[in-house]
Amino acid sequence: MSRDALFRQAAATLGCSFDGEIKIGGNYVPLVRDGATVYVSGQVPRVGSDVVVTGRAGGEASLAEAQRAARICVLRALALLQRELRSLDHVRQILRVTVYVQCMPDFTQHSEVADGASELLFSILDAAGAHTRTSVGVLQLPKNATVELDLIAAVV
Amino acid sequence: MSRDALFRQAAATLGCSFDGEIKIGGNYVPLVRDGATVYVSGQVPRVGSDVVVTGRAGGEASLAEAQRAARICVLRALALLQRELRSLDHVRQILRVTVYVQCMPDFTQHSEVADGASELLFSILDAAGAHTRTSVGVLQLPKNATVELDLIAAVV
Amino acid sequence: MSRDALFRQAAATLGCSFDGEIKIGGNYVPLVRDGATVYVSGQVPRVGSDVVVTGRAGGEASLAEAQRAARICVLRALALLQRELRSLDHVRQILRVTVYVQCMPDFTQHSEVADGASELLFSILDAAGAHTRTSVGVLQLPKNATVELDLIAAVV
Repeated sequence: MSRDALFRQAAATLGCSFDGEIKIGGNYVPLVRDGATVYVSGQVPRVGSDVVVTGRAGGEASLAEAQRAARICVLRALALLQRELRSLDHVRQILRVTVYVQCMPDFTQHSEVADGASELLFSILDAAGAHTRTSVGVLQLPKNATVELDLIAAVV
Repeated sequence: MSRDALFRQAAATLGCSFDGEIKIGGNYVPLVRDGATVYVSGQVPRVGSDVVVTGRAGGEASLAEAQRAARICVLRALALLQRELRSLDHVRQILRVTVYVQCMPDFTQHSEVADGASELLFSILDAAGAHTRTSVGVLQLPKNATVELDLIAAVV
Repeated sequence: MSRDALFRQAAATLGCSFDGEIKIGGNYVPLVRDGATVYVSGQVPRVGSDVVVTGRAGGEASLAEAQRAARICVLRALALLQRELRSLDHVRQILRVTVYVQCMPDFTQHSEVADGASELLFSILDAAGAHTRTSVGVLQLPKNATVELDLIAAVV
């Protein structure tokens, strides 16, 4: 299956569509391309105009819900890349992913949350989805989102 | 008006001067240039030797004060770029801005805080100021600063 | 002394060996090379399979222990670079270091913690170790680590 088909399948599995305008929360741009490098802004688990997973991981949000949030964030990032590049076939490598998890003070499963996003990158992009990653637990996130994720990609 | 003049005007509006040495808080450098890419270290709202906006957004620091902190941080980053490049005319594109906001546990207006910085980038650099952005709420920051901001820029 | 010898000496001083497999905590890769740029994943102070410094800086972890954590994190990152490049002589410049410190709400010595890592970069890599840095205080980190550190390097 092509990357773009795998992407559509993953979005359908999550019950999300990213076909409309991808709303962002402030006075900046969702994506900047600098030669063969693309920077994608921090994504929260927004579908349409709603942030669909909110609250603290390990508190209001279960580990499974936080992982779902991470999946939606990374699909939003891929949707932006797809729109910019016309196809995910033009992603050469995901270079860096940073995953911020709004969590309880004693929550330490940030890597497990971020794995939700990482697994999708591998399953959709195969070897091009192998990325470096940093995941941290933060006090709050915009719109009370459970997860925020940004990334840098190399493109062709 | 030139970018450098717009920068001076913005600094004057905030009542800040960045003409002296730009003090940093540790054993590292404020800026590294790698070919056409410049990395700028995390900036806190320091003017001279004082961090002028401290405490938690949504607590000791109002939204307006946190936005002022974000403006000072980004002007410090621009001052460093100006010093390195001789003029802000050599900024081709701001690629990435990360805004860390020290906040109360229930504060969710991180995007609004970061907009303080983003608006200045647009107003001073015009299209070259269009950037990707990630804003998160953190537990603490160096010197009890309300905001810390770093960026990556493409230069000519 | 060569950089690789200085690295071995620093590891021995900390009582750490990074000779075996460098374990990572999730579904991603420790390092990605993109032309002359290398991204290194977030490192926690893990030696072998144990995270050896845990808990909050300013709480269970003293400033000295948090600095030790930062040193171990940066040595892990250097170990990964050494393995990829065969020798640290191929590091042209450390471009960016981000240091996340799990801390108490009133802890503000993040720069002092991060200096533990920065000093090692200077002492091992000399001018090539001069880097930009951002240090922030976060609510939690994977495996309850006291510090997490990632970096970007330019290589030859």
